[in-house]
Amino acid sequence: MEHLRERALLVHRQARGKLSVEVKVPVVNANDLSLIYSPGVAEPCKEIYVNQDEMYNYTVKGNFVAVVSNGTAVLGLGNIGARAALPVMEGKAALFKAFAGIDAVPLCLDTEDPEQIIQTVKLLEPAFGGINLEDIAAPACFVIEERLRQEMAIPVFHDDQHGTAIVVAAGLTNALKVVGKQLADCRVVINGAGAAGVAIAKLLLSIGVGELIVCDTKGAIYEGRSHGMNAIKEEIARQTNRRRISGTLADVIQGADVFIGVSVAGALTPAMVRTMNRGAVVFALANPVPEIMPDEAKAAGAAVVATGRSDLPNQVNNVLAFPGIFRGALDVRATQINEAMKIAAAEAIAGLIQPEELTEEYVIPNPFDRRVVEAVASAVARAAMETGVARVKEKVEEQNRVREG
Amino acid sequence: MEHLRERALLVHRQARGKLSVEVKVPVVNANDLSLIYSPGVAEPCKEIYVNQDEMYNYTVKGNFVAVVSNGTAVLGLGNIGARAALPVMEGKAALFKAFAGIDAVPLCLDTEDPEQIIQTVKLLEPAFGGINLEDIAAPACFVIEERLRQEMAIPVFHDDQHGTAIVVAAGLTNALKVVGKQLADCRVVINGAGAAGVAIAKLLLSIGVGELIVCDTKGAIYEGRSHGMNAIKEEIARQTNRRRISGTLADVIQGADVFIGVSVAGALTPAMVRTMNRGAVVFALANPVPEIMPDEAKAAGAAVVATGRSDLPNQVNNVLAFPGIFRGALDVRATQINEAMKIAAAEAIAGLIQPEELTEEYVIPNPFDRRVVEAVASAVARAAMETGVARVKEKVEEQNRVREG
Repeated sequence: MEHLRERALLVHRQARGKLSVEVKVPVVNANDLSLIYSPGVAEPCKEIYVNQDEMYNYTVKGNFVAVVSNGTAVLGLGNIGARAALPVMEGKAALFKAFAGIDAVPLCLDTEDPEQIIQTVKLLEPAFGGINLEDIAAPACFVIEERLRQEMAIPVFHDDQHGTAIVVAAGLTNALKVVGKQLADCRVVINGAGAAGVAIAKLLLSIGVGELIVCDTKGAIYEGRSHGMNAIKEEIARQTNRRRISGTLADVIQGADVFIGVSVAGALTPAMVRTMNRGAVVFALANPVPEIMPDEAKAAGAAVVATGRSDLPNQVNNVLAFPGIFRGALDVRATQINEAMKIAAAEAIAGLIQPEELTEEYVIPNPFDRRVVEAVASAVARAAMETGVARVKEKVEEQNRVREG
Repeated sequence: MEHLRERALLVHRQARGKLSVEVKVPVVNANDLSLIYSPGVAEPCKEIYVNQDEMYNYTVKGNFVAVVSNGTAVLGLGNIGARAALPVMEGKAALFKAFAGIDAVPLCLDTEDPEQIIQTVKLLEPAFGGINLEDIAAPACFVIEERLRQEMAIPVFHDDQHGTAIVVAAGLTNALKVVGKQLADCRVVINGAGAAGVAIAKLLLSIGVGELIVCDTKGAIYEGRSHGMNAIKEEIARQTNRRRISGTLADVIQGADVFIGVSVAGALTPAMVRTMNRGAVVFALANPVPEIMPDEAKAAGAAVVATGRSDLPNQVNNVLAFPGIFRGALDVRATQINEAMKIAAAEAIAGLIQPEELTEEYVIPNPFDRRVVEAVASAVARAAMETGVARVKEKVEEQNRVREG
């Protein structure tokens, strides 16, 4: 790890960060200046003044995404604040570009007040084609995303929620094929009721999970539980665990077909896995140390194991989802990223592995599988058009692609 | 003009805007991902968490500027709103890069409320090394800039005010050499009390102008004037026109040595120029049509004429100032751009033309004179260090330059 530390510091220090802003047009002489600045720049301004949609033709807007965080829930580091979070947000912006050709900039907001974040992001709408919320702590993240989705005309997507949920849904779809089960027949236990856990629960409900129980540190969440609840947990309680089962994770995991951990290292013991149903699927996504290591889980009877780690099989990595989702949404100028688009993304990711290729160690595509972004973008764009949230009738991606090439 | 219009629209449409965000580090394989994103990115985060100044070593912050506007006073177009203003802000960001290697992004704020702009820009501070305010209408721009200067730890600079003022001061310095006068002996009339007019007045006061009268559409501003005043005009009234002269521009221009127009086409007539002092200097900066055309002004007796136009001699172009000013401020991690830095910038611009090179048609360097940005940056950095607003003891520009090369 010391080696990784030194190399990571070096790569950041050498370039002083990871992003640069470049100019796509010539700025060499007075003629150039007269076209891209005064007086010529007034012409696209006037076009946009008459018709706002012209922004997509004359400005960066259609390919421009803000990666917005306040640094209150940075992966593996917790609440480190807006300043210390900047390397992560730059990294995210770099992934947007490297994987999907999207111009993204990091905006780190110096506040923990949800209302201030909402107002700030709303005011920033004009220049951007989409907003990626990142590493904002639950439950504030739910309120912020929901309000922004309602009050903005461009897609707002909290990746820690939906990106994770989409890749989990994709991986689970394939894992169940490997063990020969249907999701509608499965009992699924999610451990963790933060941003990711809540979003996974909602997405699994959307795609027809059989029985679903979400646990937090107090155990199973059920309707009527009196302690440790908040607005979002109340909502989860109304939609899951209809038998109102209470108890610890060890209690509710008995007989479960699927465990999905978005919690802490060691939360799932081999003893618990041994009480699960035959052909158990274990997604142990705590980072950097999973809830249970794959070899332990398998020794205890798990059939398929996924983690968040790049050095183990079946990595649940958000980079499989968010680049293609935004690419697809931007390509059709979607006004939002809705449930149908998320489901389409999950299906596209899952569908990249052919049935004959599926094994217990290959239910999720590799993050660097270059087919992923195209497949996801196409599926998401189609879903946006089918559900009426696209603002154009056909994808405008071709010109975007040419420009990136 | 139709030809310009078509070419300007084409250059914007071809590339869909003028900026792109690029990645400065390799993102090709899982190893790269582990360094620039999870888990390696945690290392620079931890360094910054311990010491915020490490942001300048590990992130874009030290070279990252936000070009912020609400589109209420766009050059030549007026209040066209945040969306229609985006091409201008992208253009400004492009000039930051092309002239000074600074990574700048356009942020267009969908509000006319000064307090909302102040709060938004303050919350955005973590990622940025500087804020360039642009095309925000007076008098809101004065309040916004002043509050942000007081409440932020990075430079905030309203270019429409100070950029223009600095280039005017530089040009005037040289123009007075041509006509053989000292500023302290001159009577100067500024026509226009908006962002530029007020800033020019303040800077000329800083560098020791003799007598100064500012006019607005109601005529000369003087202490005790009862009509058409606001907070900033009251301040101007206390600092200028100590003889409390009232009257129209035609009245107060009589006997003046210098006219500086930041007003409207045709505001200065040949008849008015004929009443000015011998060796009159006329800066007719209204755009795109000046207060008076140079040939008319000269026929009426003006010795030196400057305009804002690239097709005429002595162009007052902000691109002579803001790239070098921000380059110098960023190079020494200045916490603000103070009066000494502005004066240093003006002197550096003026000083690029040697006394023996000065003519009535060459008092201001060409915008594409590549010596300008270096001269201004060096002078500004030195002034920042001398006045105690630099956060480092020597310029860190060399590494920045290498990175841009």
